[in-house]
Amino acid sequence: MRDSYWSFQLSEIDAVADRYVAAVRDKDEAAFLSLYDQDVVVFDMWDRWSYKGREAWSGMVKSWFGSLGNESVRVIFTCEMCVVDDDWAVWCGLVRYAGLSAEGAELRAMENRISWSLRRRGDRWLIVHEHSSSPADFKTMKVSLNRDETSAQGV
Amino acid sequence: MRDSYWSFQLSEIDAVADRYVAAVRDKDEAAFLSLYDQDVVVFDMWDRWSYKGREAWSGMVKSWFGSLGNESVRVIFTCEMCVVDDDWAVWCGLVRYAGLSAEGAELRAMENRISWSLRRRGDRWLIVHEHSSSPADFKTMKVSLNRDETSAQGV
Repeated sequence: MRDSYWSFQLSEIDAVADRYVAAVRDKDEAAFLSLYDQDVVVFDMWDRWSYKGREAWSGMVKSWFGSLGNESVRVIFTCEMCVVDDDWAVWCGLVRYAGLSAEGAELRAMENRISWSLRRRGDRWLIVHEHSSSPADFKTMKVSLNRDETSAQGV
Repeated sequence: MRDSYWSFQLSEIDAVADRYVAAVRDKDEAAFLSLYDQDVVVFDMWDRWSYKGREAWSGMVKSWFGSLGNESVRVIFTCEMCVVDDDWAVWCGLVRYAGLSAEGAELRAMENRISWSLRRRGDRWLIVHEHSSSPADFKTMKVSLNRDETSAQGV
């Protein structure tokens, strides 16, 4: 019984990831932002040290979706760890963002690592903290955007 | 009562950060690794995509402390968010690592963002997931190691 409850909780976190995929595919700002807690803190991979609160984060989302023109983005998550315990969850893994042409052809892609801390608010799970990045080369200071290219250094 | 219990929990998480600072200062591998859960997953800033388990993570620690010679490292954490709820906690903020000469003079320093998910195991809090990074410039792909230098883009 405990195991089936745990599996149910796990599937709820998978559903958050599914909603993220759909919101990005549809470039739906409202659906995307609804995944985040009002007071979320985001450490995003690009340019800024932190976004504090959903309002601040909405600027990035608007800019991202607005930059896509008639292209779209396909997101694929690969979970490395997911732990759920009643009202708390941690999820981390790999995320692959692929840019698609209007006809659905893949134009480019990159991989990042992403971590979520989530809390249950009533019947909904919300992301209270997100951290995304890719590992940097200590010599060149440049980030890698493809896990396979750095696999010689271990995965 | 609830507030004072919450403050007590918060101080327990601060104590984890304090133990991290002391373990790095003393280059004490065992004390450092004792902060982490056996099954920890670490997304470290440098070179590798992930470390799975304390055993894998111990290789990085040994290499880091072993590379310091007669220098030492002073760590300063600045918390951006800490939420504690019974057996779960999330902590995220800025971490500044300063390399010190044997005489204690600061030789160099860098800033990273760091996120921890922690779980209470009996009377101890253990890090079950760590993610560290610095934001990358979208044009040059290089990471920033100083928050002030990128503050023109927002903090």
